[in-house]
Amino acid sequence: MSREQHKRQPIGVFDSGIGGLTVANAIIKHLPNEELIYFGDTAHLPYGDKSADAIRYYSLKIVKFLLEQNCKLIVVACNSASSAAYHVLLEFFAGQALFVNVVDPLVETVRQHHFSKVGVIATKATIQSGVYQEKLREAQPDLDLTAMATPLLVPMIEEGYHDDNISEAIISKYLSDPRFENIEALLLACTHYPLIRNHIEDYFNQKIRVFDSTDIVAKVIQHYLIQRDLLNPGRQGPHRFCVSDYTQSFEETTRLFYREKIELEHCPIW
Amino acid sequence: MSREQHKRQPIGVFDSGIGGLTVANAIIKHLPNEELIYFGDTAHLPYGDKSADAIRYYSLKIVKFLLEQNCKLIVVACNSASSAAYHVLLEFFAGQALFVNVVDPLVETVRQHHFSKVGVIATKATIQSGVYQEKLREAQPDLDLTAMATPLLVPMIEEGYHDDNISEAIISKYLSDPRFENIEALLLACTHYPLIRNHIEDYFNQKIRVFDSTDIVAKVIQHYLIQRDLLNPGRQGPHRFCVSDYTQSFEETTRLFYREKIELEHCPIW
Repeated sequence: MSREQHKRQPIGVFDSGIGGLTVANAIIKHLPNEELIYFGDTAHLPYGDKSADAIRYYSLKIVKFLLEQNCKLIVVACNSASSAAYHVLLEFFAGQALFVNVVDPLVETVRQHHFSKVGVIATKATIQSGVYQEKLREAQPDLDLTAMATPLLVPMIEEGYHDDNISEAIISKYLSDPRFENIEALLLACTHYPLIRNHIEDYFNQKIRVFDSTDIVAKVIQHYLIQRDLLNPGRQGPHRFCVSDYTQSFEETTRLFYREKIELEHCPIW
Repeated sequence: MSREQHKRQPIGVFDSGIGGLTVANAIIKHLPNEELIYFGDTAHLPYGDKSADAIRYYSLKIVKFLLEQNCKLIVVACNSASSAAYHVLLEFFAGQALFVNVVDPLVETVRQHHFSKVGVIATKATIQSGVYQEKLREAQPDLDLTAMATPLLVPMIEEGYHDDNISEAIISKYLSDPRFENIEALLLACTHYPLIRNHIEDYFNQKIRVFDSTDIVAKVIQHYLIQRDLLNPGRQGPHRFCVSDYTQSFEETTRLFYREKIELEHCPIW
């Protein structure tokens, strides 16, 4: 394959469902010339309460599909999959594409700030994997860190409860935990959470720094592609949005996550 | 097989996850001599937001497994699966076991009361299937019926929020819908909901009748077995609880649904 052909290959992005669309949005904003293939594993969503081994198998199968679609770079746009499966994907597919996960860019950004007290909120699978705890403490052994599973946030966001007494009760239930007192920064370690970022910032009266994986990950991808001279000079095809299980309701919910109306393609790889 | 051997065959019960344990509990209470094999399809939970075709395929595969375990009767202990897959199960497996779903016994009970205004709450898959609407209106064409998807209740219950400001906000958000004004009865058409039955009755100040599928379904099973002379004279083995994906967290959550501590068996039929 020529360098020019290589540059024009798409970027693959996958998540258990549609939450990873927040990352896809950021990639399109920062890299408008790139062509995207998004894969949402809606047949198995949510990954947040599945076992690590199940998530590994699902991720392998999806990445195999994305490589068959000729992707030059694959983004694991799901914290649960980044935690459980990223190293397995490298083990199986290193050399066949570049891989970016959503954990490392967030950890690296926080590391640079030298905070002394930080919180992390995520799904059960991500918190139980211990990946943020391990990587943040490795970078900064004296960090005061609270990592908390906040499993009601994903269904709350997907059902569109963003700014009412339900979202207020749930957000405040989680964030009022005394272990979060005096944190300087909070990491939103789930690709759904950028949608309630404003409410979380408001909860803390804009007094703490809040980080999510959207712009940060898009910039890491940009950096990788520039470094390897793989930026696409101009997109030729449309972006594609594949799901392993199709319902009308998924298509409607994508509107919460993605700036434009999306037509979902049903790709039953199982 | 002799009649005596037939009687001693187990009853199979399946659900997308652990919600169907509320039905299993009721069966054990009413039919203590019966031996149960429970299958929770935790690899695909929740079914409530999956497509009907996906639920059909999952159900076929699970029932095939339960028939291989020699079940004499199979309970589809999930409203989403009862709605989407019951007729498909009969089409494939009629004659190989008796089948009981959780929709028909509830509809039949409500029909006998001749209410004039009734509400139904359930997952998206159940409501969108239209099965309750169709069956209730077929039984009583002039029934004033409101069927509402209440998708936050399952995650709320599974996370153990039963009696606090979160559950209060969510329950009251759904039930305060003006279409539920003056209902005489509410059907809890999801096997998770019996766990918040008290709160729902309290919300309506004990002024309406609330129905769920636990005791009603257990009595239908009892009736079927008596009618066909298939009651087990005495259980010989322990009940079994199988899941398609295993996590510690599922095992912990079973305590909300089941009166005793359960050891989950990992049966990866996928």
